Amino acid sequence: MDPAHQNELKRNAGYHAAGMVEDGMIVGLGTGSTVFFAMERLGERIARDGLSIAGVPTSYQAAIRARRYGIPLTSLDEHPDLDIAIDGADQADPDLHLIKGRGAALLREKCVCDAARTVYIVVDPTKMVETLNAPVPVEVLPFASSPVSRRLAALGASPALREGTKKDGPVITDNGNFIIDCDFGTITDPESLETAIAAIPGALECGLFSVYKEKITVIVGEEKGCRVVSLH
Amino acid sequence: MDPAHQNELKRNAGYHAAGMVEDGMIVGLGTGSTVFFAMERLGERIARDGLSIAGVPTSYQAAIRARRYGIPLTSLDEHPDLDIAIDGADQADPDLHLIKGRGAALLREKCVCDAARTVYIVVDPTKMVETLNAPVPVEVLPFASSPVSRRLAALGASPALREGTKKDGPVITDNGNFIIDCDFGTITDPESLETAIAAIPGALECGLFSVYKEKITVIVGEEKGCRVVSLH
Repeated sequence: MDPAHQNELKRNAGYHAAGMVEDGMIVGLGTGSTVFFAMERLGERIARDGLSIAGVPTSYQAAIRARRYGIPLTSLDEHPDLDIAIDGADQADPDLHLIKGRGAALLREKCVCDAARTVYIVVDPTKMVETLNAPVPVEVLPFASSPVSRRLAALGASPALREGTKKDGPVITDNGNFIIDCDFGTITDPESLETAIAAIPGALECGLFSVYKEKITVIVGEEKGCRVVSLH
Repeated sequence: MDPAHQNELKRNAGYHAAGMVEDGMIVGLGTGSTVFFAMERLGERIARDGLSIAGVPTSYQAAIRARRYGIPLTSLDEHPDLDIAIDGADQADPDLHLIKGRGAALLREKCVCDAARTVYIVVDPTKMVETLNAPVPVEVLPFASSPVSRRLAALGASPALREGTKKDGPVITDNGNFIIDCDFGTITDPESLETAIAAIPGALECGLFSVYKEKITVIVGEEKGCRVVSLH
């Protein structure tokens, strides 16, 4: 898919999600290019229609963008309950299991997803798969990156420490940690894998989101509008 | 127990653990006052007997002390497998479930415990209990401390953000996070509780050590020598 066309589809998804936000809501703001379109639209609604909301950003990037679009920011300390979260995904399957974390924001994204009553995942069609098979990013305490890497390999992964491109050495997350990208091939049981990774000391969070499917709605951008997928 | 007497018992435990270390071993070095005695003795064995070992410290404190005692240091990157770890505990029960983390070092301590083939837990008798009931320290991402606190309360805890005493505001761990101390009262099923806490996004690690009992030996300092407790 050519990038300009893909952006059209992302915009359709993002704008639809922004339309679900109502006056007075507290909104989790995910990280990544598709969420930007939702933020852009939220900014327009704030400026033109006087929409009154506040956002909880999942990354420095989300906070910077939100400020640019004029979205007032708040925090989980002020609002531990969020009405809605809008976020992207690297992959989603028909049961609404997700892989997230290509933007290295998965830890705060999972906190925000957990805190939200309803979660809208905005994607273009390339992210929809029958079975998850993208690498699973794992945020790792630098102190323990070697033994954690071996524990991840023992679970069946080919683990690769994510290297920076505008920074020598490994990518450092907004929380000061490393990312290990774990290619597990086809993931047939994401719940069990997520639980197994959670049990590794030093693996602080992983990009599998498998327990939130009841509150997730996936919005897939299409040529005209979008396709909305939920389990209800 | 008066502190001087308690220190005698701690020394007996620490010295016994240090006696289990053999030439060429890589040794995880825990955090806290009882471990200091083990390090002191290891330093003597290095200086007097030419014992050749290297230690992996679980905290800045452990590293500083190890250097003072002349123990060469290494890392989990160099040695993801440790021969032995020596560490303390806040409480231990007869099934060798532990509560750790009063020194706020639980995250790295659990990484080191996980990496070690054999773990010696050195304590004075006040730490031995029939059933765990001390507060469980949880290392928490500051970003998510409010929702995590509520999730911990939903598991039955009275959560309290740990405040510094020589620093205004919360204690910051060596990893840059908060500690929430969680009073659960009597803990009848530590495995289930540890698993439940591990599933909370933003709860990076907790002080319950319930899955390592097969490789743990608890060394309880006594008047004359010590009592050694293991499941084997």
